[in-house]
Amino acid sequence: MRDVFVAGVGMSQFGKQLPKGLKQLAAEAVLPALADAGAVASSLEAVYGGNAVAGLITGQEMIRTQVALRPLGIEGVPVFNVENACASSASAFHLAWQSVACGVHDVVLAIGLEKMTHRDKAVSFGAVGTAVDLEQRDEMAAALGAGDDSSRSFFMDIYAGMTKEYMERSGATQADMAAVVVKAHRHAALNPKAQYRDEVSLDEVMNSREIAWPLTLLMCAPIGDGAAAAVLASEEGMARLAGATDRPRVRVLASVIRSGTALGSGRAKSAVLTAQSAFERAGVAPSDIDCAEVHDATAPAELFIYEDLGFAAPGEAPRLLASGATALGGSMPVNTSGGLLCKGHPIGATGIAQIVETTWQLRGEAGARQVPGARLALTHNGGGWLDEDSAAMAVHIFERI
Amino acid sequence: MRDVFVAGVGMSQFGKQLPKGLKQLAAEAVLPALADAGAVASSLEAVYGGNAVAGLITGQEMIRTQVALRPLGIEGVPVFNVENACASSASAFHLAWQSVACGVHDVVLAIGLEKMTHRDKAVSFGAVGTAVDLEQRDEMAAALGAGDDSSRSFFMDIYAGMTKEYMERSGATQADMAAVVVKAHRHAALNPKAQYRDEVSLDEVMNSREIAWPLTLLMCAPIGDGAAAAVLASEEGMARLAGATDRPRVRVLASVIRSGTALGSGRAKSAVLTAQSAFERAGVAPSDIDCAEVHDATAPAELFIYEDLGFAAPGEAPRLLASGATALGGSMPVNTSGGLLCKGHPIGATGIAQIVETTWQLRGEAGARQVPGARLALTHNGGGWLDEDSAAMAVHIFERI
Repeated sequence: MRDVFVAGVGMSQFGKQLPKGLKQLAAEAVLPALADAGAVASSLEAVYGGNAVAGLITGQEMIRTQVALRPLGIEGVPVFNVENACASSASAFHLAWQSVACGVHDVVLAIGLEKMTHRDKAVSFGAVGTAVDLEQRDEMAAALGAGDDSSRSFFMDIYAGMTKEYMERSGATQADMAAVVVKAHRHAALNPKAQYRDEVSLDEVMNSREIAWPLTLLMCAPIGDGAAAAVLASEEGMARLAGATDRPRVRVLASVIRSGTALGSGRAKSAVLTAQSAFERAGVAPSDIDCAEVHDATAPAELFIYEDLGFAAPGEAPRLLASGATALGGSMPVNTSGGLLCKGHPIGATGIAQIVETTWQLRGEAGARQVPGARLALTHNGGGWLDEDSAAMAVHIFERI
Repeated sequence: MRDVFVAGVGMSQFGKQLPKGLKQLAAEAVLPALADAGAVASSLEAVYGGNAVAGLITGQEMIRTQVALRPLGIEGVPVFNVENACASSASAFHLAWQSVACGVHDVVLAIGLEKMTHRDKAVSFGAVGTAVDLEQRDEMAAALGAGDDSSRSFFMDIYAGMTKEYMERSGATQADMAAVVVKAHRHAALNPKAQYRDEVSLDEVMNSREIAWPLTLLMCAPIGDGAAAAVLASEEGMARLAGATDRPRVRVLASVIRSGTALGSGRAKSAVLTAQSAFERAGVAPSDIDCAEVHDATAPAELFIYEDLGFAAPGEAPRLLASGATALGGSMPVNTSGGLLCKGHPIGATGIAQIVETTWQLRGEAGARQVPGARLALTHNGGGWLDEDSAAMAVHIFERI
């Protein structure tokens, strides 16, 4: 396997942007990513595009990446449209990485694209709700007492159930969940691309509308639109590009994807196994990580993930959070971008948006939210839900060199 | 790059199968493919699934491959959902090939899955009609005088326009197009998996309902459901599998994908360029090919493709057809399966279904439609339409060893 570098990154504004279509969102991510890499459209040898629900929102299906990128003159190369629910663009990045690592290509583009807003909110929620086995959905909804009227409450009911179980087991409180949100808003306030840039208090989070106890509205990632792009290159590819040479390079240390598994039981076993593989391939330990972007689709998820990734022992995540270690200024800030909760979660774009943030951190280009001296960064991105585990789980580890 | 072998293949019945869901169709393709390869679910190290419109038909989106394969115990490995319109599963096969060729995996599954039938036929046609840039579609429809009421007539109007232009240029007649259909039905009559197994006369084709002159109903591929699967393996993977060792091996000589391009102008330039790359990588010439499966979404397309692939000089395709060379018994039979026209065209399954047929041919397992001594086979699969060219074009070349 050859070394693969993140040669350039870019992302659009995230947020509810009803008038913007996929072409505009793509341009806002790809043009900065190309410029950042010192590349032009014709530098690209292949394109891997991740998208999840824009087809259901806009009607454009099957060749979404080609359609979105054609106005930028990106054409005549292999283009693949990759879907894996909320892990769509981490999956696209993985396939792009694989093609460079294996020597098939020297310079490729990975892009995550998403359009979720629709005049009718029920269309947006309905689209998100297709990331499960529809045949299981009714059974699950009935078991959760969730009714079957809203896809959103269905997913949120899954998270609520896991959270109640976690609270019983660990002694965590609803306030612990709210503290994740306070941190996320504090980080996002420093991120010009974030959907929400206001700070909130613990009380505001606790008192916001209840979605499914113990989850309140502010504990749930919002609907939004956005795109994020990364140019990946081999050593040879880097030499060909005109990107800045006086800055640190970002190298992919591990790129691991797996789907959920029947091995053992319990929530999100795949996250544990995927992270273990990634740490093993990277040759680093959880304690070596300087900053991370993780899949906080709800606030409690961030706590679960601390434990899945080995950042905290079972039941200890609230203590890790309370220590300040995972906030800016701490020893291992998590979700400096504001995370899915506040930067936003245009689902097909999220995986690469996480990689954009960690790239900026590793290069020292994260501005007011910079983690000083960050050298190792991790991204964790999960997608879909099947048999009580993620249908797709992606963990990436990056190194500044 | 390592050698990659098609270790096992399988396909479901093709046709209008309204009661069958993706899980059943998947099982009908995957179980025979695993058995053929001497593999079990746990032999697979990754899965690449191609699908195009089943999401719009069934509501199941984002994690379709995981959902369809979970009942077969295929889990805990990377699973990628790949979309590229009618070239979705050729794209999935290409990515699977890449991962084995590059040494990432030794045994992987590529599957093409499709569900097109819907109680409301307009839903099926509407789904197919999303394989273009929707913003271009209205303009194109207006330019073609096609109206905007039916996605089917829109695509068929594109083909009709190309056919009229071809007829003017080459002197070909409507009867030449009809002759493609007569051949396709004759071949499909020998294929138990085919959607249509009846022979038809030239008159029946000419006199069937006009769709868009010169195209009649029988000149257009039907709507249908189906799945096709292939197990790919490296030399090491083959040694690990329990597949029959006393039969010829099928090796991938070339796997090339590209999207359409602005290079030059004119219809389906990408087919010419993709085929040239494939022949170059395989180190063989068009005249070396013993049998081929090509993307005859309409009857005239088969004639165009003869010329795009270099099987016939420009304008000479009708003569090649009339000579009998591309019919069973000729020197290079094309679409021995019955092609998209008669075997059927469940669009996300088509690319791999072509590979299933060529694998059977190369192994001498094609029964009544066997091409004696076939040693080199080609598949040609195109998807989507953008700026007057295919959005995705795939050419594969296989060799018996």
